Amino acid sequence: MRKFVACRTRHLIRRTVTCSLQRPLSSQSSYFSSSPVLNHPSMDSSHRSSFPVTLQTINPKVLKCEYAVRGEIVTHAQRLQQQLLDNPGSLPFDEILYCNIGNPQSLGQQPITFFREVLALTDHPNILDRSETQGLFSADSIERAWQILDQIPGKATGAYSHSQGIKGLRETIAAGIEERDGFPADPNDIFLTDGASPAVHMMMQLLLRSEQDGILCPIPQYPLYSASIALHGGTLVPYYLDEATGWGLEVSALKSQLETARSKGLTVRALVVINPGNPTGQVLSEDNQREIVEFCKTEGLVLLADEVYQENIYVPDKKFHSFKKVSRSMGYGEKDISLVSYQSVSKGYYGECGKRGGQILASLVMCPPKVGDESYESYSLEKDGILSSLARRAKTLEDAFNSLEGVTCNRAEGAMYLFPRIHLPEKAIKAAEAVNKAPDAFYALRLLEETGIVVVPGSGFGQVPGTWHFRCTILPQEDKIPAIVDRLNEFHKKFMDEFQG
Amino acid sequence: MRKFVACRTRHLIRRTVTCSLQRPLSSQSSYFSSSPVLNHPSMDSSHRSSFPVTLQTINPKVLKCEYAVRGEIVTHAQRLQQQLLDNPGSLPFDEILYCNIGNPQSLGQQPITFFREVLALTDHPNILDRSETQGLFSADSIERAWQILDQIPGKATGAYSHSQGIKGLRETIAAGIEERDGFPADPNDIFLTDGASPAVHMMMQLLLRSEQDGILCPIPQYPLYSASIALHGGTLVPYYLDEATGWGLEVSALKSQLETARSKGLTVRALVVINPGNPTGQVLSEDNQREIVEFCKTEGLVLLADEVYQENIYVPDKKFHSFKKVSRSMGYGEKDISLVSYQSVSKGYYGECGKRGGQILASLVMCPPKVGDESYESYSLEKDGILSSLARRAKTLEDAFNSLEGVTCNRAEGAMYLFPRIHLPEKAIKAAEAVNKAPDAFYALRLLEETGIVVVPGSGFGQVPGTWHFRCTILPQEDKIPAIVDRLNEFHKKFMDEFQG
Repeated sequence: MRKFVACRTRHLIRRTVTCSLQRPLSSQSSYFSSSPVLNHPSMDSSHRSSFPVTLQTINPKVLKCEYAVRGEIVTHAQRLQQQLLDNPGSLPFDEILYCNIGNPQSLGQQPITFFREVLALTDHPNILDRSETQGLFSADSIERAWQILDQIPGKATGAYSHSQGIKGLRETIAAGIEERDGFPADPNDIFLTDGASPAVHMMMQLLLRSEQDGILCPIPQYPLYSASIALHGGTLVPYYLDEATGWGLEVSALKSQLETARSKGLTVRALVVINPGNPTGQVLSEDNQREIVEFCKTEGLVLLADEVYQENIYVPDKKFHSFKKVSRSMGYGEKDISLVSYQSVSKGYYGECGKRGGQILASLVMCPPKVGDESYESYSLEKDGILSSLARRAKTLEDAFNSLEGVTCNRAEGAMYLFPRIHLPEKAIKAAEAVNKAPDAFYALRLLEETGIVVVPGSGFGQVPGTWHFRCTILPQEDKIPAIVDRLNEFHKKFMDEFQG
Repeated sequence: MRKFVACRTRHLIRRTVTCSLQRPLSSQSSYFSSSPVLNHPSMDSSHRSSFPVTLQTINPKVLKCEYAVRGEIVTHAQRLQQQLLDNPGSLPFDEILYCNIGNPQSLGQQPITFFREVLALTDHPNILDRSETQGLFSADSIERAWQILDQIPGKATGAYSHSQGIKGLRETIAAGIEERDGFPADPNDIFLTDGASPAVHMMMQLLLRSEQDGILCPIPQYPLYSASIALHGGTLVPYYLDEATGWGLEVSALKSQLETARSKGLTVRALVVINPGNPTGQVLSEDNQREIVEFCKTEGLVLLADEVYQENIYVPDKKFHSFKKVSRSMGYGEKDISLVSYQSVSKGYYGECGKRGGQILASLVMCPPKVGDESYESYSLEKDGILSSLARRAKTLEDAFNSLEGVTCNRAEGAMYLFPRIHLPEKAIKAAEAVNKAPDAFYALRLLEETGIVVVPGSGFGQVPGTWHFRCTILPQEDKIPAIVDRLNEFHKKFMDEFQG
């Protein structure tokens, strides 16, 4: 939301301010697109008092805060979608396919029945006693609803809770974490927030005192990190993942970037690790994780472990190990390593992005139906159905991208995305420059305009300068994938024909 | 949440850092309590690298961010509550009565049935088609659920929405605002957030560039304002409400404070007005509101209108007029006055604090059952029951406070609080100083320890220096009010006997 407020502010201010504003375009020389500060010499002070809020007078950090996942290309797609409604047949495609955002339920993924049963019952507990309810809801969802209501003071789901979230639900979640990791979890160390994003913001707000404070972030990264660092006035210190080795994380690269940052006078406060990776989809090996823990301990960095895709692993040779588990199995407690782990109800097989966390839902995700529960079988079928489908789609799209000329794509071991690399012909790069666009944004825009497929240019995530990528989700329903692959193939061939030699 | 993170951080850090920390106590000279920055000469740099996060090294703005509503006295109350569980009969009372926080459902207020029916149905739409559902839910709640689902792309309530919130729901809300005010409302000007608090934070983040930026705030104020201004690095510019005239707001006082601030080199960005007031409960007259709008227009200030208690008015001689309506009826559009209005689902007669906004709920609150709808009568009964009960409790407690020796209490025209003034004997003030407490905190602590009643000391909200108050909610259920009044009377008499002469 915060990231969007910056865009809307720009829009609202443009509507009310009559001066025309020129906005310098993204530079190719930085590792990802930056948002410049604006100057308006034509705004005099008498005029200014009529407009208390202008682009010149808002907090400049808000202007620096960008989030490509909902950026320019998405706005354009929405306009085209409206055009299709107003004027069917006016475009070379019938529908927009949003492959820009990790939003499974918007593309047809169904919620987990047991979870929604419990939510409905705790929303309206008046019906728990009624006989009709027995006919409508599974017995264990009714039982779970009672259990949860008993944990809530006064059974009042509409009341403000303890600031960290309802104690009983934190205890349930702690038990789930303990079962996942094999190490004790303390409910007092758990904070239930309105989604993982506010929690990321809170840590940035806590750790960043000035521009002299840095946060090590992977490149490519999920741009919530670059956005929140900008918003809270810190400096992003990049460390590059290695595309050639499946987006590998070398601790030597971490060390080198840390040293460079320190030599510039920065105090690096924390290391962000996204595992499984976004947009890159790699799953770290335990060895790698141990090196990372050791590195943070030695260098006095907080380890910010974004683990929201912990239940999205698609390959048999990889497993999720939480950094909590890895740290504790190295014998490191909270006095040895400062660790923050982010989990979310928005991803996994539950995909409840719109629920914005939700204490009850979080307790269900961390403590789902067990063997022997009435709902266990149907729950398992739903879960396995979704996860195996995601794995199939990941593979199908990975193969599709790899089959395109000049495109290479690492496999998605986990998460919800593919991040193919496009080797663009010189002619295409020049055509992009001629219209003041980054080459990957140019490609993505053409893709949208000719096929209706919406992807996010790699510059939104960061990439090694001179390389071009885009992020595409694996979320469209399976029956749509063949059409997507066909359209992609056709478009890409045309594009290469146009811009080659 | 953010405000709490500061407290928890202090707590967590204290647990892990072995140095003992001395924290200077609140000073009486400022108009409300401040949180000082800590110094720890005993922490050397080698030790520091083992603890990447210490009170010395976190963002000092987080330390300055205080929120008395969930402050020290509440923590103490929770300890006593645990003591009652562990050791019944060990205290002079049987239960803690939380009168510190505007949290109606935690004290027995029931949610509005129709609202919860619709939420349950939209949570689990699978049941909409079933015959048992007809027997369990009102027909119009089923109809409304269908209507809402049709406004949500793919009927996917679990999906991320448009960044401002689902368009169709914003249209419903805009229609409700239009009906309330008699002026058009634009869905594009509506932002649905996770509660009103994040929206307040967003505006502070937008408007505050440095400590040189100020925000005019009423004293007494709801400490979200002081907390968010501190957190986002700005300066609070106080304007005093006049207790003698029912907490009146004089524009001359605004002007004078604005001028003083400007003479110190501050750029004042906005004016916060809370109407109905919190903690003070007054409702502004339309004339007063027109003066305020004119003032903001002339001085180039954003008007931040906290209107979350718009449906809590208890006196026949006052009515709620939104600043939107007032501005438009003066002929002022968005080019004339920059206005932000906050509304919430946490207050009113719905009291859904725990729901954290919620787009569907917001649309129900702004567009509730109408005459002729099946649920209209039961809905009206519930609503009127709650509001008339709140009005009765407001009056009963106001009279009770006024009957105490040395206590005066303005009436609560609206909102959910009383803010009585206690004229403390010199001996009590000295006793408070001797234990390093503000006199109102001293009184409130004694009240808690002897009666179990939890109120918030006035210093948490700000008050004219040398005056003492506390904020008490009107929310305990009506059948508990007589006992509260008795305990209060008894306690106060004893207190005055102890500290008089």
